[in-house]
Amino acid sequence: MNSASRPDLVPESPGTGGAAAGRHVRRHNLALVLREVAGGEPVSRAGVAARTGLTRGTVSSLVEELIAGGFLTELAAARGGTGRPANPLQLNRSGPAGLGVEIGVDHVGACVVDLSGAVRAVRTAPSEHRSQPPAAGVARAAELAAEVIAEAGLPVVGAGVALPGVVGPDGVLQRAPNLPRWVDVAVGEQLAQRLGGIPVTPGNEADLAALAELWFGGRPADFLHVSGGIGVGAGIVLGGEPFRGAGGRAGELGHVVVDPDGPACSCGGRGCLEQAAGQEALLRAAGVPDVEQLVAAPPATVLAGAGRALGIALAGAVNLLDVPTVVLGGLYARLGNGLVDAVTAELRARVLSRPPVDVRVSQPGTGGALRAAAAAVVRERLRHP
Amino acid sequence: MNSASRPDLVPESPGTGGAAAGRHVRRHNLALVLREVAGGEPVSRAGVAARTGLTRGTVSSLVEELIAGGFLTELAAARGGTGRPANPLQLNRSGPAGLGVEIGVDHVGACVVDLSGAVRAVRTAPSEHRSQPPAAGVARAAELAAEVIAEAGLPVVGAGVALPGVVGPDGVLQRAPNLPRWVDVAVGEQLAQRLGGIPVTPGNEADLAALAELWFGGRPADFLHVSGGIGVGAGIVLGGEPFRGAGGRAGELGHVVVDPDGPACSCGGRGCLEQAAGQEALLRAAGVPDVEQLVAAPPATVLAGAGRALGIALAGAVNLLDVPTVVLGGLYARLGNGLVDAVTAELRARVLSRPPVDVRVSQPGTGGALRAAAAAVVRERLRHP
Repeated sequence: MNSASRPDLVPESPGTGGAAAGRHVRRHNLALVLREVAGGEPVSRAGVAARTGLTRGTVSSLVEELIAGGFLTELAAARGGTGRPANPLQLNRSGPAGLGVEIGVDHVGACVVDLSGAVRAVRTAPSEHRSQPPAAGVARAAELAAEVIAEAGLPVVGAGVALPGVVGPDGVLQRAPNLPRWVDVAVGEQLAQRLGGIPVTPGNEADLAALAELWFGGRPADFLHVSGGIGVGAGIVLGGEPFRGAGGRAGELGHVVVDPDGPACSCGGRGCLEQAAGQEALLRAAGVPDVEQLVAAPPATVLAGAGRALGIALAGAVNLLDVPTVVLGGLYARLGNGLVDAVTAELRARVLSRPPVDVRVSQPGTGGALRAAAAAVVRERLRHP
Repeated sequence: MNSASRPDLVPESPGTGGAAAGRHVRRHNLALVLREVAGGEPVSRAGVAARTGLTRGTVSSLVEELIAGGFLTELAAARGGTGRPANPLQLNRSGPAGLGVEIGVDHVGACVVDLSGAVRAVRTAPSEHRSQPPAAGVARAAELAAEVIAEAGLPVVGAGVALPGVVGPDGVLQRAPNLPRWVDVAVGEQLAQRLGGIPVTPGNEADLAALAELWFGGRPADFLHVSGGIGVGAGIVLGGEPFRGAGGRAGELGHVVVDPDGPACSCGGRGCLEQAAGQEALLRAAGVPDVEQLVAAPPATVLAGAGRALGIALAGAVNLLDVPTVVLGGLYARLGNGLVDAVTAELRARVLSRPPVDVRVSQPGTGGALRAAAAAVVRERLRHP
């Protein structure tokens, strides 16, 4: 790829523009080098120069700065091949790290990822937040966070926290339907205080779970990810970017109506998807006490009922958003093909667009919302080194 | 505004870059001058220079080219004031014009707008397309188009056509739920042939109706416009741009489910919004034969039922898209405050986000989808003169 076909390339030409413009170009090019190295295959300084169109001298100066800043390491030259040996560059796995925290309805989690997005320490624990004041849940999450930070032994530069509710543009958890006591809680600020001032960015759990599918599950650029749990939430990805709507709170699929006269919902509405296909509704319908038993042998009637309710809500979402792919995550992924088939049948009957919507379960091992919360920190750092 | 604060300004500096770059800059600056003149208040060459940061010489040369191309006219100087009189520039109302065509379920329309977007000729006529082959409907629309083109007497450079169904990325009408015979119809091509080769761009009626609200109704940048008719469709505007979803077919609110076991719908589904709150359902519920009688005295029960069904579907859309404003158009606008109140009450009960959704009727006199289809042509021409 040459420089003429790279719209994102800003050639570095000292002497033109002021000092501010020079710094801007430098920052841009630092990020460009990081992107090339983060891209996957090993690449040397010469390789980066060839791919970006920057001169070798410029690349070397940028690489030195990135090595000094802890972003890159340079390995010994690989053997074999012809010509001068090239030392492959890679992201410094001891460099700036990201902390992910999750506060769910009945659990907490924390993990640390390194610059490459790999999980270096992770812990989860049950923690019942429906009956506790928010401060207790935040304190429990902070304890777990301190443990994974100590275990990973990396310089954590920021944190993301996944929350089961509506996060406002100011980062405040406005409302979590399944946690009635959590109203207008500045979770980010409270967590930052308990973690010695690390900047903390709150996000919606379902949005982050969708990003995990995108970043670590190899999803294409357009899909809706719906995650089943005590709450039911969706994250929407369009054009490879999270779609958050006009006010940043898009994707509340759990509160789309599937039965107008159905049971009252924690959100104040009636007949929402969550009441028909949330974890507690499915356990009740199956007559079993916990998720493990449900997943071990889900009754056909329960799969059919959940598939129908999910299909109705998803048909509306597909008709409105025109997404080609639906990914079933969380509990829904564990219910497997029986649920996929029931959802597919309902969508076939109710969706206007063609070709038919592709329904599949989420990729195992992505690390979900918790890892995505941590990875968002390092991805941002790589974009703005 | 000076040039430093104009990120869109590309200074014209002959001698740098090649001829291709020079032409690119020239085209960019022609569009920039047009945008300043189209902005509203009268502005002279000197005013354009002051606002854009281009030199007076450059602006004069650009203005001469735009006058020669039929885009601009220069009026006589206004009297009064001090200093040299300034001749105000305006868009040439005899310049390139846009044709709008609408093929509805039971009507056709055509209009011509001038460069300023003002309607210069418009005609609509009943035309029943449910029973006719598509070619007959296209022929009727082309007749009407020829009439308005003759009446306006302007050079029509392109056309837009508003269609009541799903338009694919290739411009083909894939499916129109209320016109079962219109499947995979290349309406644009057929219309272009009948209009002597004018380029024709098909679009969804609801998307164009939303753009009419945005361009001519003074709406803010984020809203969902739902238009009631034989079909029920929505156009979504986010950040001042139409939101079309991953496949370009977003906004099919009419086929969002409001009653899972409700009546079968023309789309193949069941209990869609259109079956509960489409024009025919409302006429049936009110026991009147036509829209005029319905609008003259809408029964309270009909308003309540329509408001409830619309509210259920819109609550889902707001929960998914997080739009702050809902605009009721078409038949819904004519049903007035009774319907607004019923929809508002349903949304209050069912929407998760805050502050409450603002529900209002569409602005009268925007010209709707028909005018927007025509205006899209001249807006594009002004952006790329």
